[in-house]
Amino acid sequence: MSTAVSPLAPPDVPEMPVIAGVRLATAAAGIRYKGRTDVLLALMDKGTTVAGVFTKSKCPSAPVEWCRAKLKGAGSSKKGSARALVVNSGNANAFTGKTGKASTALTAQIASKAVGCSTSDVFLASTGVIGEPLDATKFDGVLAQLAETATPDLWMDAAKAIMTTDTFPKVATATVKLGKAKVTINGMAKGAGMIMPDMATMLSFIFTDAPLSAGVLQSLLKAGVEDTFNALTIDGDTSTSDTLLAFATGAAAANGAPKISRASDPRLKAFTKAFQQILANLSEQVARDGEGARKLVEVVVEGATTKPSARKIAMSIANSPLVKTAIAGEDANWGRVVMAVGKAGEPANRDKLSISFNGIRVAKSGARDPSYDEKEVSEAMKAPKVQIKVALGLGKAKDRVLTCDLTKEYVAINGDYRS
Amino acid sequence: MSTAVSPLAPPDVPEMPVIAGVRLATAAAGIRYKGRTDVLLALMDKGTTVAGVFTKSKCPSAPVEWCRAKLKGAGSSKKGSARALVVNSGNANAFTGKTGKASTALTAQIASKAVGCSTSDVFLASTGVIGEPLDATKFDGVLAQLAETATPDLWMDAAKAIMTTDTFPKVATATVKLGKAKVTINGMAKGAGMIMPDMATMLSFIFTDAPLSAGVLQSLLKAGVEDTFNALTIDGDTSTSDTLLAFATGAAAANGAPKISRASDPRLKAFTKAFQQILANLSEQVARDGEGARKLVEVVVEGATTKPSARKIAMSIANSPLVKTAIAGEDANWGRVVMAVGKAGEPANRDKLSISFNGIRVAKSGARDPSYDEKEVSEAMKAPKVQIKVALGLGKAKDRVLTCDLTKEYVAINGDYRS
Repeated sequence: MSTAVSPLAPPDVPEMPVIAGVRLATAAAGIRYKGRTDVLLALMDKGTTVAGVFTKSKCPSAPVEWCRAKLKGAGSSKKGSARALVVNSGNANAFTGKTGKASTALTAQIASKAVGCSTSDVFLASTGVIGEPLDATKFDGVLAQLAETATPDLWMDAAKAIMTTDTFPKVATATVKLGKAKVTINGMAKGAGMIMPDMATMLSFIFTDAPLSAGVLQSLLKAGVEDTFNALTIDGDTSTSDTLLAFATGAAAANGAPKISRASDPRLKAFTKAFQQILANLSEQVARDGEGARKLVEVVVEGATTKPSARKIAMSIANSPLVKTAIAGEDANWGRVVMAVGKAGEPANRDKLSISFNGIRVAKSGARDPSYDEKEVSEAMKAPKVQIKVALGLGKAKDRVLTCDLTKEYVAINGDYRS
Repeated sequence: MSTAVSPLAPPDVPEMPVIAGVRLATAAAGIRYKGRTDVLLALMDKGTTVAGVFTKSKCPSAPVEWCRAKLKGAGSSKKGSARALVVNSGNANAFTGKTGKASTALTAQIASKAVGCSTSDVFLASTGVIGEPLDATKFDGVLAQLAETATPDLWMDAAKAIMTTDTFPKVATATVKLGKAKVTINGMAKGAGMIMPDMATMLSFIFTDAPLSAGVLQSLLKAGVEDTFNALTIDGDTSTSDTLLAFATGAAAANGAPKISRASDPRLKAFTKAFQQILANLSEQVARDGEGARKLVEVVVEGATTKPSARKIAMSIANSPLVKTAIAGEDANWGRVVMAVGKAGEPANRDKLSISFNGIRVAKSGARDPSYDEKEVSEAMKAPKVQIKVALGLGKAKDRVLTCDLTKEYVAINGDYRS
């Protein structure tokens, strides 16, 4: 694990307010790491709704399968309700066969006893090494103690307990009007490698006291991830464990917040915007903590025939090792950007392409921009954030993807993570 | 440019025989590099046939477009004939707009004068930096001198003149019976980065004295690349310039070799096998010279539902930065292999997966193989060649892909290639 904090970490960490109906506790259960917390228990009051989106991996982790089954409700009346979230770091409980399934069942059982709820109201997430059995008996005793000591104000501790190769905890918060009442949204995320979310990235949890039905929450999540967590890549590697869960306690109803049961409800407008900003904020923080990252990279593709086409080209650029190493070397190597546009397989006309780095156009109409000044662009490449903009000149569709550069530190971090 | 030869370079370099009807010459034209050759001229006798396969990039280089047009014959009777091949390193003449097109035309004109042939019999390939105009006037005088001094025995010099970040020249040769006559096949290749051939990789040229029609040559190439150059990836980045050309002078007809004009001709059997071995040999050499490579990696996927499905999963593993960095760290991290299988999006059943490293099974039936010995596998990972075998347990289809590990040197090489 890297110990130095990413130079791209946000300078300001927000004060995280409490969310009525949510209590948190963390512990060091010794799952893998020594001398740090590795278990988070979040307790939610009765009436809390839940929604989730997960990895599209064909080999998902056991906790992902557990959560999916609970959200589907498995025929139960509990569909969409939640009372507890248990997250551990250090072991992903992925590719652990029947042991993995048994381990999720045992964890949920221990949690349900500790909290006093049904196992179907327990949600689970694990992150860390893949393929090692997770010994769920380590939660025995620990979760009961956490349930007793949980308090509403432990947000930073919670965000720290779920870290793996992250170099800083990732949190975001917003307070917004729902009807005439104030409601609050808190979010946290972890993730630094194995990130090319064909969905959410690694682990992220959102909590609010707004009274939203599970269906509304699910709609908000699904719409919200499209241009945030789904438009993010560190290394093109999709985790087996990507999990994004949102919980709504509904506690703000006591202050007059209206109960929302339709996603199209006009009163939801400000909330939707704030919710999306939280997702955008957290996903950008994940890019800022990309393993070994020294530059935040924003890839903008415009003039595409369709938005999915723009997304595919942007992802091709964002995942190109040659583009990413060039950025690490502060080299405005637009030839490699052309290469990445060309290999995407999407409509592109070489002779209409224009490319800019941090607002300086280096190529236009399929050739070097004769007016560009190498010195000026070299200077611009030294900034901690680099925007690559590609204008395809074909249509009006546009998209944007966030990533980071590829440095020797990425190789160092991943060359001996397991051992 | 890296100067140390890759530790994976083949220990033995073959003696390259002459190919009747082919003469070679190289020069230092100062296109980009100092103190080394950067131009190759290959002269072929009248009656030489030609075939080619090229990058699938949507933004191909000017020389690729030139060769494609010549192979299509553009309505001319010259279709499939060749007299000269001009290759330069240092500048790819890609993304150079109208200047690039003019540059290919001028180069071909200079070559046609020097050789005394039609411009439609001139084939061109360029490799090196993208987006810089290629000054074709540098060939003026140079090509005329090369045409005068060309000799049949310069194969190693030729292979050196086309190198960019390669650390060793790549050649292969075979002698085989066609009918009752001996015929010879010589091949050379260059390529070390920007390699994920959705076709051939970077530049490779095959020469033979066998009397083959252009159609037969094209069939041999198309069939031959599928499991060789197309089953190779260094970094997942497809070049704008990938070019594989084959030339058959037909000179062996004088020794009694039969003229072959149908790909299904049974007399072609031994030749076809030798031709494919040359392609396999050259493409493996490219993997062995992957930028910064310290390990040759063979990914075998078996038990798949179809061969294309096996290919897609093998490529997903071979292109995963996390798998590649794990190999660099000599870590048998099969969890990352599971991740890469899962993200491929192809049929896979987690609980049927088995994974081996260099013949040692580390996972079976979707979980850690209880019998595997960490020490034994750690020892095996120290070998310069690592085979990752994934058994999906679904069907009978199988495929194989070659790649290399991802090291800090890759990042170093590509972090300041252009500047």
